[in-house]
Amino acid sequence: VSLLALLDLVGIFVFGLSGGLLAVRKEMDVFGVAVLALAAALGGGLVRDVLLGAVPPEALTRSAPLAASLLAAAVAIAVPSRLERGAGTVQVFDAVGLGIFAVYGASKALDFGLGAVPATLLGVVTAIGGGVLRDVLAAEIPLVLRREIYALAALLGAGLAVAAARTVGLGPLAATLAASAAIALRLAALRGGWNAPRPRL
Amino acid sequence: VSLLALLDLVGIFVFGLSGGLLAVRKEMDVFGVAVLALAAALGGGLVRDVLLGAVPPEALTRSAPLAASLLAAAVAIAVPSRLERGAGTVQVFDAVGLGIFAVYGASKALDFGLGAVPATLLGVVTAIGGGVLRDVLAAEIPLVLRREIYALAALLGAGLAVAAARTVGLGPLAATLAASAAIALRLAALRGGWNAPRPRL
Amino acid sequence: VSLLALLDLVGIFVFGLSGGLLAVRKEMDVFGVAVLALAAALGGGLVRDVLLGAVPPEALTRSAPLAASLLAAAVAIAVPSRLERGAGTVQVFDAVGLGIFAVYGASKALDFGLGAVPATLLGVVTAIGGGVLRDVLAAEIPLVLRREIYALAALLGAGLAVAAARTVGLGPLAATLAASAAIALRLAALRGGWNAPRPRL
Repeated sequence: VSLLALLDLVGIFVFGLSGGLLAVRKEMDVFGVAVLALAAALGGGLVRDVLLGAVPPEALTRSAPLAASLLAAAVAIAVPSRLERGAGTVQVFDAVGLGIFAVYGASKALDFGLGAVPATLLGVVTAIGGGVLRDVLAAEIPLVLRREIYALAALLGAGLAVAAARTVGLGPLAATLAASAAIALRLAALRGGWNAPRPRL
Repeated sequence: VSLLALLDLVGIFVFGLSGGLLAVRKEMDVFGVAVLALAAALGGGLVRDVLLGAVPPEALTRSAPLAASLLAAAVAIAVPSRLERGAGTVQVFDAVGLGIFAVYGASKALDFGLGAVPATLLGVVTAIGGGVLRDVLAAEIPLVLRREIYALAALLGAGLAVAAARTVGLGPLAATLAASAAIALRLAALRGGWNAPRPRL
Repeated sequence: VSLLALLDLVGIFVFGLSGGLLAVRKEMDVFGVAVLALAAALGGGLVRDVLLGAVPPEALTRSAPLAASLLAAAVAIAVPSRLERGAGTVQVFDAVGLGIFAVYGASKALDFGLGAVPATLLGVVTAIGGGVLRDVLAAEIPLVLRREIYALAALLGAGLAVAAARTVGLGPLAATLAASAAIALRLAALRGGWNAPRPRL
């Protein structure tokens, strides 16, 4: 799906920006910024491909994902202040990446013969994996484990994609709708400050 | 081995409880609790299978491990206080999981043609991997690196399993004995507050 | 390449020392010291081999890497104070390991058919992966993301190795020169207290 492939690169780029920006905030040097940008941009896809046995992973065999990640690192190094001021914009793009990664990850897992539940789970792993790796490398508790319906949005997108694949087929329209639902939920949660409930002791 | 498979599920379930409980203590939301429960329950087996090239891993191709993990997450979300009060009980089950995972991991590594030392090591990785991943995601130094003869118990179980496989064969009885030795050592260390020596500078 | 294989073991051993020493400083017990020594020594190569699909990884199928790692753990447990006093010496050996791992990782990636840029990247991952894993397990922000031209030295070594492979061929002489360039840059940065620039907000 050509549209999905293009959106996938957008997702990689904006996740890369989020990694680079966190590294700048943590006062890392330019190489730290590059490593965190690449980890955030490519981490989810790398874990997905390794678990599927799709090795070497896409990120190492196709040029575009790596180029998009390196571009994000360069932007974070060149204009960190502009990125910081545009943090709200980054979050919007990040939501786009989240939705796309969830759908693409689930779809690829189905192609490799996984069942519906594991494929949904792998969509979630693809969507949140890069952010988790980014935060672990920065010695922080991953944000996605604490805030704003992030994992739920990924679960929604991946679940819809799997449901579509098992019924009407996961064509460009169905894939776009599934990703859009995830993106909409994430953006609404951001805007409304929604949080998932916390179990209390 | 049917008995070992059943015990494996018990191990997955109680490791899942330990992950969910830690997430609740860290004030994560319900999705954070679910992610930490799954990471603790399935992490060791995922790393083992990836290193063996047994991909997609068991956790994604069989239903039972995933179901056991999700059940543990649900319990941690539904009755966290009861889990907290039963922390001692959880530790007992955790010891059971530790012993089983060590034996099962070492046994699977031998099946994939690894030598005795690497197979023992992979048994230890299987047994402690989930707990390490759980603690890293919670931004803590992994408990198993600091306390109470945890890794030694895994080493004992895995080592006995490999020794049995190389001599009398690793049937149900030998596997149970190897796991029991690991469990007994871990429980004795817990009860007695035993700790391994610390090198000092 | 027999020389490279020997140097590879030196790299594994000294990375293992760095892991064991950090664990002693963090007041871990003897098993924590062993786990951190193994993680630092073998982590980079494990990640490289998993991403290449070269599983089970070298570290689990050949005896020498595992033996070198365990020996490093034993040294860290037996004479931690001597290691602490010789920290400067350890850093020199660590630089040697860095250069060798970068060249060896990039070379292996080319053998598996990766392109020039991904192969260079995988050389860097091999060189810094063990140190990153070591620091993450110790709940610290990886040193290599913050200090002293570490990643740049790895990038230099891996890049020169790939350039040589694509032109004159990566024989023992070219491999040694590429590794030496990385080692020299790292040692000069250490001695001179050079740091990479930090982007500022």
